[in-house]
Amino acid sequence: MRSSRTLGGVAALLLAALWPIASAVAAAGGDAGERAVAAVDPFIGTGGEGHTYPGATVPFGMVQLSPDTRIQPRKDAYGWAAGYRYDDRSLVGFSHTHFSGTGHSDLGDVLLMPISGAVRLERGDPDTPGSGYSARFRHDDERAEPGYYAVTLDDDKVRAELTASARVGVHRYSYPAGQPAHVLLDLRTSLYDYPGKISWSRLRLRADGTVTGFRETRGWAPGRQLYFALRFSQPLRGHAFHNTEQDIPYKGFPPPGDNDPTQRAQIEGRQLVGSFDFGDALRGPLLVKVAISPVSEDSAIANLDAEVPGWDFDGVRRAARAQWAQALGAVEVDAPPAQRTQFYTALYHSLLGPTLFMDSDGRYRGPDNAVHQAQGYTHYSTFSLWDTYRALHPLLTIVQPPQRTNDIVNSLLAHQRESPYGVLPVWAFHGLETWCMIGYHAVPVIADAYMKGIRGYETDAALKAMVASANYGPYDGIAQYRELGYVPIDEEGEAASKTLEYAFDDWTIARMAKEMGRSEVAATFAKRAGNWRNAFDPDTGFMRARKRDGSFRTPFDPDASGYGTDYTEGNAWQYSWYVPQDVAGLARAHGGDDKLLARLDQVFDAKVDPKVFAHMEDITGLIGWYAHGNEPSHHVAYLYAYAGQPWRTQARLQQIMRSQYAARPDGLAGNDDMGQMSAWYVFTALGFYPVAPASNQYILGRPFLPRATLALPNGKRFTVIADGLDDAHPYVGSVTLNGRPLNRAFLRHEELMAGGELRFTLQATPNTAWAAAGAERAYSMSE
Amino acid sequence: MRSSRTLGGVAALLLAALWPIASAVAAAGGDAGERAVAAVDPFIGTGGEGHTYPGATVPFGMVQLSPDTRIQPRKDAYGWAAGYRYDDRSLVGFSHTHFSGTGHSDLGDVLLMPISGAVRLERGDPDTPGSGYSARFRHDDERAEPGYYAVTLDDDKVRAELTASARVGVHRYSYPAGQPAHVLLDLRTSLYDYPGKISWSRLRLRADGTVTGFRETRGWAPGRQLYFALRFSQPLRGHAFHNTEQDIPYKGFPPPGDNDPTQRAQIEGRQLVGSFDFGDALRGPLLVKVAISPVSEDSAIANLDAEVPGWDFDGVRRAARAQWAQALGAVEVDAPPAQRTQFYTALYHSLLGPTLFMDSDGRYRGPDNAVHQAQGYTHYSTFSLWDTYRALHPLLTIVQPPQRTNDIVNSLLAHQRESPYGVLPVWAFHGLETWCMIGYHAVPVIADAYMKGIRGYETDAALKAMVASANYGPYDGIAQYRELGYVPIDEEGEAASKTLEYAFDDWTIARMAKEMGRSEVAATFAKRAGNWRNAFDPDTGFMRARKRDGSFRTPFDPDASGYGTDYTEGNAWQYSWYVPQDVAGLARAHGGDDKLLARLDQVFDAKVDPKVFAHMEDITGLIGWYAHGNEPSHHVAYLYAYAGQPWRTQARLQQIMRSQYAARPDGLAGNDDMGQMSAWYVFTALGFYPVAPASNQYILGRPFLPRATLALPNGKRFTVIADGLDDAHPYVGSVTLNGRPLNRAFLRHEELMAGGELRFTLQATPNTAWAAAGAERAYSMSE
Repeated sequence: MRSSRTLGGVAALLLAALWPIASAVAAAGGDAGERAVAAVDPFIGTGGEGHTYPGATVPFGMVQLSPDTRIQPRKDAYGWAAGYRYDDRSLVGFSHTHFSGTGHSDLGDVLLMPISGAVRLERGDPDTPGSGYSARFRHDDERAEPGYYAVTLDDDKVRAELTASARVGVHRYSYPAGQPAHVLLDLRTSLYDYPGKISWSRLRLRADGTVTGFRETRGWAPGRQLYFALRFSQPLRGHAFHNTEQDIPYKGFPPPGDNDPTQRAQIEGRQLVGSFDFGDALRGPLLVKVAISPVSEDSAIANLDAEVPGWDFDGVRRAARAQWAQALGAVEVDAPPAQRTQFYTALYHSLLGPTLFMDSDGRYRGPDNAVHQAQGYTHYSTFSLWDTYRALHPLLTIVQPPQRTNDIVNSLLAHQRESPYGVLPVWAFHGLETWCMIGYHAVPVIADAYMKGIRGYETDAALKAMVASANYGPYDGIAQYRELGYVPIDEEGEAASKTLEYAFDDWTIARMAKEMGRSEVAATFAKRAGNWRNAFDPDTGFMRARKRDGSFRTPFDPDASGYGTDYTEGNAWQYSWYVPQDVAGLARAHGGDDKLLARLDQVFDAKVDPKVFAHMEDITGLIGWYAHGNEPSHHVAYLYAYAGQPWRTQARLQQIMRSQYAARPDGLAGNDDMGQMSAWYVFTALGFYPVAPASNQYILGRPFLPRATLALPNGKRFTVIADGLDDAHPYVGSVTLNGRPLNRAFLRHEELMAGGELRFTLQATPNTAWAAAGAERAYSMSE
Repeated sequence: MRSSRTLGGVAALLLAALWPIASAVAAAGGDAGERAVAAVDPFIGTGGEGHTYPGATVPFGMVQLSPDTRIQPRKDAYGWAAGYRYDDRSLVGFSHTHFSGTGHSDLGDVLLMPISGAVRLERGDPDTPGSGYSARFRHDDERAEPGYYAVTLDDDKVRAELTASARVGVHRYSYPAGQPAHVLLDLRTSLYDYPGKISWSRLRLRADGTVTGFRETRGWAPGRQLYFALRFSQPLRGHAFHNTEQDIPYKGFPPPGDNDPTQRAQIEGRQLVGSFDFGDALRGPLLVKVAISPVSEDSAIANLDAEVPGWDFDGVRRAARAQWAQALGAVEVDAPPAQRTQFYTALYHSLLGPTLFMDSDGRYRGPDNAVHQAQGYTHYSTFSLWDTYRALHPLLTIVQPPQRTNDIVNSLLAHQRESPYGVLPVWAFHGLETWCMIGYHAVPVIADAYMKGIRGYETDAALKAMVASANYGPYDGIAQYRELGYVPIDEEGEAASKTLEYAFDDWTIARMAKEMGRSEVAATFAKRAGNWRNAFDPDTGFMRARKRDGSFRTPFDPDASGYGTDYTEGNAWQYSWYVPQDVAGLARAHGGDDKLLARLDQVFDAKVDPKVFAHMEDITGLIGWYAHGNEPSHHVAYLYAYAGQPWRTQARLQQIMRSQYAARPDGLAGNDDMGQMSAWYVFTALGFYPVAPASNQYILGRPFLPRATLALPNGKRFTVIADGLDDAHPYVGSVTLNGRPLNRAFLRHEELMAGGELRFTLQATPNTAWAAAGAERAYSMSE
């Protein structure tokens, strides 16, 4: 009883910390939230190339405790980026850190495996029972829900259940009676594995039974340190620490107990594994709780004590579920069950990152790999910004309290301050920069927040950080971009994509600077926002890469793609429409709306052999050249609406939603990319999408839900109703906002935040007159 | 002027911190101190196998800034344990950390090399000028004195001068005019080098021109982290950061500037080198100051700012020299110049360690590799305890203020608290345990201090830590030793040596516990102190290793030695006399004093082919079987005095002092072992030696100096006078203490500390009557 009460109190504290204005939005949770949680299927995306994980986490949690089915060598790692693939029939254990939906991999830290019977130290052949500790399992025995995962290990007959708080993973292992029970802790395993990945590691059994340790990996981010602390609910009967690497012998080293692994109090090396033994007389299930920390073993212990002081697995699980109910309750959806599952799973996947990256005392590790103290905000990391600036961050501004976005912006600014390069993050995780993908897309995240009035950070410092990032010459051709107005392909790869994305990011700086009255900065970056024109080739109608001499690089093949070519994860067909800041200008460049519309149709209607992208694992989800599985396409279907044909957008969205999403494990057309694919789904299902973050506009598509109500963070409610919605009625006939006709294809952010009702009437055939020529156009730079 | 004044102030502060009762002993410094400094020759021990370094450091300083002549692979590393060998004619640079006189190696961190002309990134062939950055030099151009070292690089014509404060090394490079000047920073080099030694490293150029970085090595101590911060006195014109390892490429990584090493703000990896360029128009010499820290780059910057805020090389050098004058002034010696040089160099080498291991804010890294805060004391590391418990630590109690020993004891106790094993250090450096050698010899260090009334630490905790260390079963057969009264050779190597040394350490626990009134502990350990008897074989008269069944291991060859045999770095001839706690008992075991005396003569007079120890690099300095180059022999010559024949001790000491020490680079007969060889010299030259630390007795030998005065830390002065001393008069005729005849072969610690005059009259022939049979014997357990 006592530990249960304690836990409850702590859980309440955690809720309060993670949901700063919980009381204001409490109404959003409750029954609706609980029903939302029940609708989530964490297995969606665990098949195909969705790369999501089915394990236990809380919203934006630091721990993602999830099963890993295979530890793959680097060359085969792509499919196992989140550790788990639904097609696998065996698993190697439960590790505490995972990316959700990324196209590159790492993490998989602190892998535990319960073993019954004889200890096995090696994974063995996953298909050969008994050859190692790998364990077969059946999906029938699996259960996954927000904050909870369970599975039965077929061979050893161990039931394993997982739950989590923000920084602590809690395991409950039920062993068969009468057999020796063990827990294996393997510090050798890692997602994206290769020889030498582990630079150093340590495993220590303390006198009070706490196990602590550390691992430093040279993975996707180099020099990443992760500390942990672990406790068992029942007395340890024995242990053994092994270093399975033939290590360098020193005079005097290794330490006491070297000849007897059961006597080792500590072990260090690069290939460590520990077994913890509990005999054959456990009293009920064994609980294991594991806290992680980026700072130190002592901080991991502090995290453990602060969050999960007791042994109430169900209490932790309830607390996690309550957090999810709170978070998912931000949207109340009336729809058939399968659609509710798709929607809430998408929303669930949109609330997994950025992830908390701060100890209970506010310390974290920054991009300089030094320890810093967060002052007055909650620090986050795992920024897949090339993906998430598009829809994920804009979504968080309406389904999460502004504090979340403020904390994220403050985290971005801290990264810039602490960066050896003085720039905002590009693709950062666990505090460290990977430089993956292109652009300076922290910039639109901040500008979008600022333009929406979310300003709980030093705004002058923010603008300065944005400008510094946009002007950092050594990064990806920025020096040349500043000099020439474009990135020259003879000096920097993927130049066309870089020029286009820099220009968009620049536009968001201009927007924010103008709003701040910083007219000089605004003018500089407004000019840079027009640099997309330097990539446009009027002869071919494609965006192309220029050389320093001003000529376009030849030969030119709009079908060609590849790493290091003119484009980033795409080709000319995919990248040529990336001018969200000036679609009207893009249309004019093409010779008018009709010309642009025709080109968009060419994109979608092309007959494309998917094999042309066999060498580009990230380009998936093809409809013609349109690749919904990768982010450069995400805004394209909405462009029809800009050009006066919103009905074409509506049709394309129907096509995409039908073909690219499904309520099954392989139901995502490509990597979920830390929630961007899912955030696209959430917006599109609601009927609108933020084509140009920082514009404060959402382009109207068409709703896919009969009725959805946003419980906005300001306490107001905004309801989207789709009258007459069914598969046979995909077109918008008319729209009203708060009862008044709306004859434009966009919604203003302030209209959304004011609350009210957006009602679509759907019909079988296009209403080509609605929001068409002569109607109010979406925002563009020329406006 | 300004920086000079600032520096002076800081230097004064440092002095105050490092010499807590500076005012009380100020008289000891002054002219005598300055003359002592002038007498030191840091090159003594840099030839042969002395393994000392000639570079710049302050007493017990954290930085040892010294030239490295070769970076040797592991198999050849022994001779270059301190980086420098006098025979070498080229050097590779100046690194900031070195052991003094150890038989194993590591360190050599943060190697800088000034380069004039074209940058070379690789060391090249040391014998081929221009093949790399290795530089030839001549001893004529070298200068070394306490706190200062200088050399001219022959090929590039750069004059390099080095000095140091406690945590900062300061370089002054004078380049030839008109050539491009560079500084190379090589993080790849390391003493005791081998592939994979560097686990991870980082190099960063900050916006303000400060260079910071980090290196983690898996050397003698695994997982050792060292951080640094570096500043140049003149503006940097350019830089280039290189990773010379073909590194794993990641999607998105490496960072900006990867294609252009001059654009890299930071680089990480395992094989890093940076060049810093100053053009060809430097204004005078370039100064480089480098602080190290075990904690973080920021702490290194703080150390730099705290200790050397300005650019006054000569001021830092003066401050270092002043500290040395203060420290060396503790003994005032009248003797011929060569002897003064030998004596003060020995005293200098006795004051190099343990080394400060704490940032300016009191933080350090402990044996758990975590960061800790020293509370109310100064934290030290580099404990070569198997060596230094014998004479070095006892010496520090009389030539250094008690605060030094208290700080050392507090450091030992902190290590025990923070140790994953809960034990005092064995052989620790930079906070980390190497487990090198045998015994728990922190125990006699603490007991010796306690018995001498040096008690500035928690004495109950100290005794508890000593008992915990003596009872830690998994370490080196202690469990069996507790069970059987000896370490069984069939279960643990080097069992005879371990049994003997454990028994001595146990005796010191008994002494201290008795003094504390802890009679139960005292009784337990007094009993254990007699365990040496379990190693004694009356049939052969040797100490031998027993098996668990009680029998001695056979075959037995008293000449045999080798790692893992019955003995530790020795054979039966060397180890059979290690019962300093009960020499009378040892004599009785042999059948009386005469029998023991005869055996001792056998040791010294044996005809031994030195080749029998060719496989044991540490066993050197042979006189018969007596091996002065290694510690197990260090007390042996003094044993004659216990057995009633002090004149034999006097003769042996003359033999040893003549053959094993000289005022030249190869003037040490073996590794100086963090000052133990030198401390033996200091004591022996003064005329007495602490055969049994914690006994509060010094065995009288004979003085080798005409007159020496100890300026004791309590302000009193103790003078030793050797009347009639010359080579033809090696024997003690009579002794007076404060004018009264002293007819015993030992001096009590309290007699020394009371101050006064110990006067020996030397003569050509032995006075066999002095302190002989019937006279008062030295302390033994039977007393």
